[in-house]
Amino acid sequence: MDITLRSPLDMHLHLREGDMLDLTVPMSAQHFAGAVIMPNLVVPVDSLHHLKNYRQAIESYCHQEDFRPYMTLFFKTYSRQELEECGTHILGIKLYPAGITTQSEAGVSDFSAIEETLVHLQELKIPLLVHGESDGFVLDRERQFLDVYRSLASRFPDLHIVMEHITTADAVALLDEFDNLSATVTLHHLMITLDDVMGDLLRPDLFCKPVAKTPRDRNALRQAVFSGHPKIMFGSDSAPHPRHKKECIGCAAGVFSAPVALPLLAQIFEDAGELDLLQGFVSTIACQRYGITPPDKKVRLTQAPWQVPSYYNDVSPFFAGQMIRWSVQSAP
Amino acid sequence: MDITLRSPLDMHLHLREGDMLDLTVPMSAQHFAGAVIMPNLVVPVDSLHHLKNYRQAIESYCHQEDFRPYMTLFFKTYSRQELEECGTHILGIKLYPAGITTQSEAGVSDFSAIEETLVHLQELKIPLLVHGESDGFVLDRERQFLDVYRSLASRFPDLHIVMEHITTADAVALLDEFDNLSATVTLHHLMITLDDVMGDLLRPDLFCKPVAKTPRDRNALRQAVFSGHPKIMFGSDSAPHPRHKKECIGCAAGVFSAPVALPLLAQIFEDAGELDLLQGFVSTIACQRYGITPPDKKVRLTQAPWQVPSYYNDVSPFFAGQMIRWSVQSAP
Repeated sequence: MDITLRSPLDMHLHLREGDMLDLTVPMSAQHFAGAVIMPNLVVPVDSLHHLKNYRQAIESYCHQEDFRPYMTLFFKTYSRQELEECGTHILGIKLYPAGITTQSEAGVSDFSAIEETLVHLQELKIPLLVHGESDGFVLDRERQFLDVYRSLASRFPDLHIVMEHITTADAVALLDEFDNLSATVTLHHLMITLDDVMGDLLRPDLFCKPVAKTPRDRNALRQAVFSGHPKIMFGSDSAPHPRHKKECIGCAAGVFSAPVALPLLAQIFEDAGELDLLQGFVSTIACQRYGITPPDKKVRLTQAPWQVPSYYNDVSPFFAGQMIRWSVQSAP
Repeated sequence: MDITLRSPLDMHLHLREGDMLDLTVPMSAQHFAGAVIMPNLVVPVDSLHHLKNYRQAIESYCHQEDFRPYMTLFFKTYSRQELEECGTHILGIKLYPAGITTQSEAGVSDFSAIEETLVHLQELKIPLLVHGESDGFVLDRERQFLDVYRSLASRFPDLHIVMEHITTADAVALLDEFDNLSATVTLHHLMITLDDVMGDLLRPDLFCKPVAKTPRDRNALRQAVFSGHPKIMFGSDSAPHPRHKKECIGCAAGVFSAPVALPLLAQIFEDAGELDLLQGFVSTIACQRYGITPPDKKVRLTQAPWQVPSYYNDVSPFFAGQMIRWSVQSAP
């Protein structure tokens, strides 16, 4: 059996920089019509100048016309003029609480100091993408942050706020409270719980922020996604780290799922008996929520089993060494 | 300032086997008057013959007369005769639920099939040491196992049951319900929570079973230990793994705390303002609960700061690279 996806989108992607782009860009460009590119480089992408250079670097590794990198700026206080100049160069602004994940040291530490920038964003119709975690106990961080979402969503009702990579039943429920909230969900949070990360041997390849949660939380995510929740989009949060940053004492957070994202999504949607909802999750809902029109691209998936490599260069991917029933074929 | 501990005991210790004994045995033998030796070797120590060989191997690396290895047998169904023959060769029997931690595959999978052995243990006054975790969600395993403890403690009221390496407030509370329950607590569970393991970078050196829990749980352990709880003994659960088993995909559970145990205990008891309770925690309470008389040995600790090495051979210890205010001196 084959299925054809129209213009699949990865609404949360870490391509990294430098040589890593040689691995990450062609991979996502082959499978997707577009991706939302995260700005947390070693030096955060927090100016239009830096953003243009970064997009140029990405495009130099991209040999396909039908892949669009949707760029984001790292949140800081921006003037209205700075944001106006960004215009169509950016899809949104990505907000990190300070120190909460990889290269987020320059993030927001005082939410009361960012009001003016939020006013600009709302007026200019620039979406706000948020890594929503507090600095509390690791399993409570997302839940504790929900009140920040509530506050932002109610005080800026015309600001489109995207709760990135949600992992909890409580976050799913919050979507119902405010029209201007959307969310992304990763592949791995649909598949794993904390048991997979540390229930048997410890798995640095499955360690990410937010950390995988309880079976109850995963079930809530699956129930929402496999019922076609109209505000939940796919965002892989694929985040490669080289082996020496993973297999060590003090291992970096991030699951490298880009190479397996579409095939595994097909598999889990098929297992849920909801394969016809995959198109919405990986494209249609994102187009609606963001009001974007990605390149017209058809990606064919076919039921041809393959074994995921243990490493791509020196990055261990999600599902390493395991079999996946679906493969991405070239465009039809 | 100096303090002198009389016959300190480590009531839960993994010495491992083979070359590893060269690292582990002298280290514990220098600091302690005795230690309860866990039997979960690659081939479990589940016969008197194997146990005698193992003790002989341990003693061949031990150049001190004043250190006693208290041996334990790996739980399986034993006949009364087998247990009678063990006599004073064993301190107790260590029960692992099947598959719950390192080399526990041969553990108990059906608790209804072990009644007869438990009857023998009770009649022969042989303590039962238990790794008390269910096979449920990783953070719920200890709590879910408490009903097994309740059942065992109530049906075998004369059986001394030791809840090993407890990590939760609920386990502390259970001690009050049955006279025949005791518990060990590790150094690391008095110091770390899940935040330390995965709240920032992932720390395989702090990964152990049971996994570290919440701040509330740690507070309950600290409150109990720092108030001289009369049923809680120190057991390090020091469990070394070579570097290639820790810094990899699929890392083994165990914190190697033996080299820092006494100095760090002195530090945290001092910080709690309860230094005079340390003697009870590391010796007196264990002697009372088990009815044992360890070798008469004095261990002097002095306030001389030192930096913990990054590795002992190729094993990364607890508190690697950090400073500790207290040092173990030679016997006074």
